[in-house]
Amino acid sequence: MKLAKFGGSSLASGEQIRKVFGIVKSDPLRKIVVVSAPGKRFESDIKVTDLLDAYYQDYKNGKNLVPIQTTLLDRFEEICDELELSELKQFLSEKVISLALLNLHNRFVYDKFLSTGEECSALIVSSYFKKNGLNAKFLSPKDAGILVSSDPCEAKLLPIAYNKIAGLVKYPEILIIPGFYGATLNGEVCTFSRGGSDITGAILAAGVKAEMYENFTDVDGIYSVNPNVVENPVIIEEVTYREMRELSFAGFSVLHEEALIPAARAGVPMLLKNTNHPELPGTQIVPNWTIDMPVVGIASSRGYVIIKITKYMLYRDISFGRRFFEILEKLGIRFEAITTGIDDMSILVRDKYLSAPIQEALSDDLKEILQVDDIVIVKNLAVVTAVSEEIRQQTHITGRATLALARKNIKIETLMQGASEVSLLFIVKEEVENETVRSLYEEFFED
Amino acid sequence: MKLAKFGGSSLASGEQIRKVFGIVKSDPLRKIVVVSAPGKRFESDIKVTDLLDAYYQDYKNGKNLVPIQTTLLDRFEEICDELELSELKQFLSEKVISLALLNLHNRFVYDKFLSTGEECSALIVSSYFKKNGLNAKFLSPKDAGILVSSDPCEAKLLPIAYNKIAGLVKYPEILIIPGFYGATLNGEVCTFSRGGSDITGAILAAGVKAEMYENFTDVDGIYSVNPNVVENPVIIEEVTYREMRELSFAGFSVLHEEALIPAARAGVPMLLKNTNHPELPGTQIVPNWTIDMPVVGIASSRGYVIIKITKYMLYRDISFGRRFFEILEKLGIRFEAITTGIDDMSILVRDKYLSAPIQEALSDDLKEILQVDDIVIVKNLAVVTAVSEEIRQQTHITGRATLALARKNIKIETLMQGASEVSLLFIVKEEVENETVRSLYEEFFED
Repeated sequence: MKLAKFGGSSLASGEQIRKVFGIVKSDPLRKIVVVSAPGKRFESDIKVTDLLDAYYQDYKNGKNLVPIQTTLLDRFEEICDELELSELKQFLSEKVISLALLNLHNRFVYDKFLSTGEECSALIVSSYFKKNGLNAKFLSPKDAGILVSSDPCEAKLLPIAYNKIAGLVKYPEILIIPGFYGATLNGEVCTFSRGGSDITGAILAAGVKAEMYENFTDVDGIYSVNPNVVENPVIIEEVTYREMRELSFAGFSVLHEEALIPAARAGVPMLLKNTNHPELPGTQIVPNWTIDMPVVGIASSRGYVIIKITKYMLYRDISFGRRFFEILEKLGIRFEAITTGIDDMSILVRDKYLSAPIQEALSDDLKEILQVDDIVIVKNLAVVTAVSEEIRQQTHITGRATLALARKNIKIETLMQGASEVSLLFIVKEEVENETVRSLYEEFFED
Repeated sequence: MKLAKFGGSSLASGEQIRKVFGIVKSDPLRKIVVVSAPGKRFESDIKVTDLLDAYYQDYKNGKNLVPIQTTLLDRFEEICDELELSELKQFLSEKVISLALLNLHNRFVYDKFLSTGEECSALIVSSYFKKNGLNAKFLSPKDAGILVSSDPCEAKLLPIAYNKIAGLVKYPEILIIPGFYGATLNGEVCTFSRGGSDITGAILAAGVKAEMYENFTDVDGIYSVNPNVVENPVIIEEVTYREMRELSFAGFSVLHEEALIPAARAGVPMLLKNTNHPELPGTQIVPNWTIDMPVVGIASSRGYVIIKITKYMLYRDISFGRRFFEILEKLGIRFEAITTGIDDMSILVRDKYLSAPIQEALSDDLKEILQVDDIVIVKNLAVVTAVSEEIRQQTHITGRATLALARKNIKIETLMQGASEVSLLFIVKEEVENETVRSLYEEFFED
C-alpha cells in the first residue's frame, strides 16, 4: 500500500481537491490519505492555518470575532460549493464557531484552534471522495492511533503509538486522516511543530510499512540547486535520506528533519510529486541509492565565520581541546566544523553566535585561559555543500569540484569533507558564494 | 656573515675535516663554525658521542675503563695523525681521561661526558685551521654566551643569552664553537637534547643575525619524498620554514623542531648542504617562498586510527565538544585531527594511544557519558601529507592530487586541509600508503 500526503495548496480549492481525487483514484494502492489545511490559492492569499491563528489571537484578546469567523467560513463554504458538498457546510461552520467556546486556560486550546484546518480538510475530502464513488472514511488522528506527548505545539509521537497505527492496514476503506496533530493520552488535541502534516505522513507510512510515502505539493520535486542562483536547474530524480538530511542541514528548505526520520528509519521510500503535474516523475527519497550521480545536490548558506587560533605546539597540549570547548560552551558558541594543525585550530561557526561582546569575551578567554599566540577571525563566509553518497566512494569528485573552481579562479578558504562522508564543504567568501554554486552546478549537472 | 655548522660525518676523519677547511676557506663570509662530535666513518662505525655514553656507563658502574678510554683515544689520535696535529694528542687524551675523575653525584656529569666529543672536535678543527693559515679561534659555548637552563640533557637557551651572542660579530677570527651544549648560570656544562648541534647553530645564527645558516651533512639536501618509496626523488630546492615544520610533523626526519625555531623566528635562511659535494645547490629553508611549486614535499606516516562516533543531532548539543574532549584528556588520548558532521564526529589519533584497555574505556565512556548511538574504529590508516605554501593560494592543487589518486583507484578515507593551510592530508589504508605517495609524486614531480 501507499500513503499519499497532500500539502496545503493541493487542498486550497475545490479544483485542487478534484485533482487529489483523481490522483488517489488512479492507483488502488493509495489506501491512506493525509491532508493539510487549505493553503494559498494565489500569492497574496492567506492559509487557513494562519486564519485560525488570527482567530485564536482575537478570541484570546476579547476582540469581535465576527470578521475572522466570516472569513474562515467563507473559505470553507466556497470549497464546499465548488465540490457541491452543501450538506457539509453547516457541520464545518459549527466546528469553527464552537472554537470560541473553548476554555482559554486549557493548555491545548491553541493546538485545537490550529488543528481545525486539517480536520475540516479531511472532512471535506472524505465527503467528496465518498460522494464520487470512492470507499473513503474519515479517521481522526486519535482513532488512527497517533498518540503523542503532552507538549503543546511540539508533540512527539509516543513509541507505543506504532502498535495501533499498524492496525490501519485492516481498514477496507481509503482512510482520510488530518495531518499535523495527534491525541495525548488524555485525548487532547496536540499539534506537531508547524508543517507537521509531513510528520503525520511519515509516521503513518512508517507505522503501516507503506511501500511508498507519496508527498504531493505544488512543485515538481526537489531542485538540485537553488533556482534563484541557477536558472531552471534539474530536479533531483533520486536522493537518499542521508543525502537529503545533509542538503537540508546545508541550506535546502524542503522537508522537516522530523518528517524524514520516521520514514527513513522504517526504510519507506518517499516520493515528492506535484499535484498539478502528477505525470512528472518527481523526486524520490530512498534508503539506498540506485542511480549513479557524482553530485546529487548543491546547497549553500552564508553568514559563517572562521575563528582561527594559533598557539605554538598546541597539538601537544592534551588538555587544549577540552579547555577550548569549555570556553565555547560557556559563551554559547556552537561550532559546525573544526580543523586542526600542529599550531592551529580553526572552527567554523554561524555569525549569529558571535556578537561583538561575545567575540570580545572569546578573545579574552582564549588569550587568558588558553594563552594563544594569535586569533584571526574571518567573517562573511559562505559554506557551499555538494552532497552525494558517491563522495564516499569516489575520490575524483573532490578533484573535479576543486578543479572546476580553480578554472573560475574561485579561492576555497577551506575544504572539508563532512564526517558523514557524503558531503564536501567548500568554505568561500560570501561574494563568490553564487559563483561557486554555479561553477559546481556546471561541472556536475551540465555536460 | 654566514654561520656554518658541520655534522658528525663531516668531522669523522682527517679527510673530512680537510673538506670542512676547504669549505670554510672558500667563503670569507663564513665567520662562525659550529661542529658536532666525530660521527661514523662507515656504516658499522660508532659515533664518538655513543662511545662517550658507554664510557659514562662503565664509569658509573665501576667497570674497567681502559678498553673504552683506549677506543676513544685511538679515535682522536687517528684524526690528529691524519691532520698532522701530534701536539694536540696529549691535550685531548687528558680531557678524556680526566672525565673519570668527575663526581658522579653532580647533576651534570653525564652532560659533561657527552659534550666532550664536540669540545674535542672544535679543538681539532681550530688547531688545524690555524696551522693551515686561517685566522681561527676556539670559543667554548660558555664564552660564546650560550647560557642555558639547568636541565640536564634538556637545556633551553635563556633569553638573556642573545645579548652576549650578538657580540660574537666583533671577533676578527673565524670562531670554532662546539655544538650541542651550553653553560648554566653556575658555569656547568649542560647539553641540549640529542642532535643538539643543530640547535647551537640555529641559536648562534639567530643571535648574530647571520645572512645564512649553512648546515653541512653527508646528504645532498632534503628529498621531496622518502627515497625508500620513490627511487631517486628530487631534492627540494627551496622550502619555507612553515612547510619544513609541516613536513617534519608529517613524517620527515630531518631537523629537530628546536633547531628550526630560532633561525625561523630571526628570519635567517638555512641552507642544507653536503660536505662531500659542496658544489651542489642543497636545500634552502627560507622565511618566505620565492620559487613556485605546487607541492614541495610529500610525507607519510602510518599507525593511525580514526574513531568515528555517531549521535543523532550531535551538533545541536553545545556541551558535546567539551564533554568529548574531557573523555579524551582523561584517557590521555591526543588527537591529530577532527572532522564533524550533523550527527558525526571523527577524530584521528595515533594507534599508540589506543591500547585495548584504553579503547574499551573510551567505548564505555562514549556510551555512558555521551550516550552516542554508534562508535566505529577504523585502524591501520596512514596519513599522506602533501605540503606547499601554494596550497593556500591555489585550489587546483587539491583537484590535481585527488584526480591523480582517483586514476589509480586509490580510495581516500578522508581528505583534510590542515588548519595551517599549507598541507593537504590524505588519510588512506596503510596498504596503499606507498602507492598514494608514489601517485602524488608522479603527479607533482614528474612531467
